[in-house]
Amino acid sequence: MADFENIAKQFVEFYYKSFDSDRTSLAALYGQDSMLTFEAAPCQGVASIIQKLKDLPFEQVQHQVSTLDAQPSNAQGGILVIVTGVLLVEEEKRPMSYSQTFQLLPREGSYYVFNDIFRLVYPAA
Amino acid sequence: MADFENIAKQFVEFYYKSFDSDRTSLAALYGQDSMLTFEAAPCQGVASIIQKLKDLPFEQVQHQVSTLDAQPSNAQGGILVIVTGVLLVEEEKRPMSYSQTFQLLPREGSYYVFNDIFRLVYPAA
Repeated sequence: MADFENIAKQFVEFYYKSFDSDRTSLAALYGQDSMLTFEAAPCQGVASIIQKLKDLPFEQVQHQVSTLDAQPSNAQGGILVIVTGVLLVEEEKRPMSYSQTFQLLPREGSYYVFNDIFRLVYPAA
Repeated sequence: MADFENIAKQFVEFYYKSFDSDRTSLAALYGQDSMLTFEAAPCQGVASIIQKLKDLPFEQVQHQVSTLDAQPSNAQGGILVIVTGVLLVEEEKRPMSYSQTFQLLPREGSYYVFNDIFRLVYPAA
């Protein structure tokens, strides 16, 4: 498995584990120039992104990853990570499909999330 | 609407119109360093990508875009484009949901597809 694929896999495991236990801990994974577009609502910077995630209308949430794809995104070590999966939210009996795309960029020997786009995917028919 | 959003919108319209009428015409949108991961199968370069698209097991296909998100992907004018939508294939009565992520990079006054990741998204339950 190529290095970027290992990194993508480790990132995705860590990201959703953190998200599902304590969303505010994700602050460490973003930067001031990070962008999040969550269901078409855009925000930028650690503070805005964490506020957006905290404001989501659920307390308990569980992400189940179905597919994970990764590709190098530039010559400087950036990695594109695309996840499809299922979201289980406390009040909802019915799980929802989602798709999330990240671009990870190198930062101080590790990586941070530069791009983050989340969308629910509704059944086609 | 920001410039990158207009470009993303125009690209997506053109891409699927070309895909649904003549897949081989998409060659103009890729480069030698372009990567496609189609349902987990990776390939690189114009020739391999077009061969992969030609080999897909359907003749008639129609993409219907449900959502389109875009973000700048770097300081050099790159654009991340994320589409969710519905795929209608000739023999299939049942439409399929999909998610596709592109990274567009500037090339000679226009753009080309550097990253391309396609996944079908199955209903959650």
